[in-house]
Amino acid sequence: MQIATPYLMFLGDVPDRLAAKTAYGIVDWRPEWCVGQLRLPGCAADLGIPDLTIAEGVGKGARTLIVGVVNAGGVLPAHWIATIVQAIEAGLDVASGLHTRLGSVPEIAEAAARHGRQLHDVRHSEQRFDTGKGTRRPGLRLLTVGTDCSVGKKYTVLALEKGMRARGLDADFRATGQTGVFISGRGVAIDAVVADFISGAVEWIAPAADPRHWDLIEGQGSLFHPSFAGVSLGLLHGAQADAFVVCHEPTRTTMRGVKHPLPSIREVIDLTVQLGRLTNPDIRPTGIAVNTQALKEAEARALLERLAAEHGLPATDPVRFGVDGLVDRLVAEFPAEFPA
Amino acid sequence: MQIATPYLMFLGDVPDRLAAKTAYGIVDWRPEWCVGQLRLPGCAADLGIPDLTIAEGVGKGARTLIVGVVNAGGVLPAHWIATIVQAIEAGLDVASGLHTRLGSVPEIAEAAARHGRQLHDVRHSEQRFDTGKGTRRPGLRLLTVGTDCSVGKKYTVLALEKGMRARGLDADFRATGQTGVFISGRGVAIDAVVADFISGAVEWIAPAADPRHWDLIEGQGSLFHPSFAGVSLGLLHGAQADAFVVCHEPTRTTMRGVKHPLPSIREVIDLTVQLGRLTNPDIRPTGIAVNTQALKEAEARALLERLAAEHGLPATDPVRFGVDGLVDRLVAEFPAEFPA
Repeated sequence: MQIATPYLMFLGDVPDRLAAKTAYGIVDWRPEWCVGQLRLPGCAADLGIPDLTIAEGVGKGARTLIVGVVNAGGVLPAHWIATIVQAIEAGLDVASGLHTRLGSVPEIAEAAARHGRQLHDVRHSEQRFDTGKGTRRPGLRLLTVGTDCSVGKKYTVLALEKGMRARGLDADFRATGQTGVFISGRGVAIDAVVADFISGAVEWIAPAADPRHWDLIEGQGSLFHPSFAGVSLGLLHGAQADAFVVCHEPTRTTMRGVKHPLPSIREVIDLTVQLGRLTNPDIRPTGIAVNTQALKEAEARALLERLAAEHGLPATDPVRFGVDGLVDRLVAEFPAEFPA
Repeated sequence: MQIATPYLMFLGDVPDRLAAKTAYGIVDWRPEWCVGQLRLPGCAADLGIPDLTIAEGVGKGARTLIVGVVNAGGVLPAHWIATIVQAIEAGLDVASGLHTRLGSVPEIAEAAARHGRQLHDVRHSEQRFDTGKGTRRPGLRLLTVGTDCSVGKKYTVLALEKGMRARGLDADFRATGQTGVFISGRGVAIDAVVADFISGAVEWIAPAADPRHWDLIEGQGSLFHPSFAGVSLGLLHGAQADAFVVCHEPTRTTMRGVKHPLPSIREVIDLTVQLGRLTNPDIRPTGIAVNTQALKEAEARALLERLAAEHGLPATDPVRFGVDGLVDRLVAEFPAEFPA
């Protein structure tokens, strides 16, 4: 899936900001791709970018209308269809994160066929994959892993991409989730891939590359989460991670959606190394990323210092304190791969 | 899904016996349903049943052509399509265990529509699942796990079902693969379930049951297989296995389809217990099942004796020597759950 940029962000008439979480994520990380927003009357979300008509969006160079919102049941509301059809008629592709496939709506399918436009359903994958082979491939890969779901794995790799590129390093974010696919313009929502092809899909997402190139792979779930550990393991094996960063949210008491307690960071490090060695015997932890949003700054700094000392790893909140320490560690651990 | 019997078994031109393991499994467990086999030039597998043309199969009463083979990635080879279309034209339904949906091949879809025949894709399920919850549920569950793919995990649970029922125990085979679904007429091919729902699907396949009831769950892949470990882990977590039997093929030198060496039985036991404890802290090994087909009887017996002594577990070849020892161990380990 390769989504043409830049984007015109369609918000429909979503009732709150949370429903447009994906769109906010895209604007946060790829502001240069977002020429404006298109909102229907009653829309309660505002991305803080110009409100544009379809014609104005096209005039500003937009190539894809992004339906970056969620809706009850992931269904495409009937009263959004006319706008989507108009966008197609104006020459835009459409990319959606809804459960409803764009092509399953006859008016949209017909308009796309008539005008030769692409329809992308980010939640669904038409991509064919091979099964994972487990064969080492050149290039360097970093994976974010977690003590739970939703603890900052995507944010951490995006922040690392920015920080590494700022130092002139060759690094690419590799998306494995819906929002990440919009942000990178390519990739696969790994949770939509059939189970046999998880590791194969990751081998495709982060393929053989220049020996000094870093792929920064968005992790999913947790090896300790009873719902999603299989996904996390397939991702780990497919990534053949050279390095991993453990992501953590310190106020979480049970794992998301279930009653299981969170594992410790130490347990996550140990199990990731133990299982990751199957496809990369040299796998190692290179940092800890903590979402400290719920803590005061002094508490956050104290926690990070304690974790850093306890594990012998740089520990940071990428949002609050940046990723310099994480990048320093990568440079130190993989010196041959970095420019002097 | 209701597949009309009897079956004409289509083997295509698979390069070896292992690629036709689905077909062998059906013939072994449902010989009365298999009127004959249909093979293309170069086929290296032989089910030991009559070679029939499509017309001869129809003449013997066949109602469904079974595409009972596996293939790298589950892809339907283009040169098999003409035969499948001819079978449809001769009045047969078609049931396939490949990942490729029969209906996604235009010639096959058109022929089925034209002749009013059913197409069954056993690997695909229209069933919707919840994500796994990891909450303990009543009933007992045994899972077969492996040192590799294709080492007898399905045979072992089918043999256990037969052996346990013969002793008046309440036990059901629970299929998780295409062959099992062909044999049992129910279940879900777990390796075709979308990755997020692996453990949830297993919770659905083997639901809460009477405390003395055993679900005998067909394992898939191996925790040590770089292509499929994620599937195996999701299955283990969803099964919440009380007991597991390790399945092994002693002549295998590398894991199927990849270059990785086989893990030892000890490694499989240890990792299964370590990871399985997440959803069942009482998980324990109760036996070893070895496919000794390649060994002479004396060699086979010596190997089984050695493995039994080494691991303190009953070890058998279920096909060659039966499952009495495995059932004895279950009775001994879970006495409250068995009739006196």
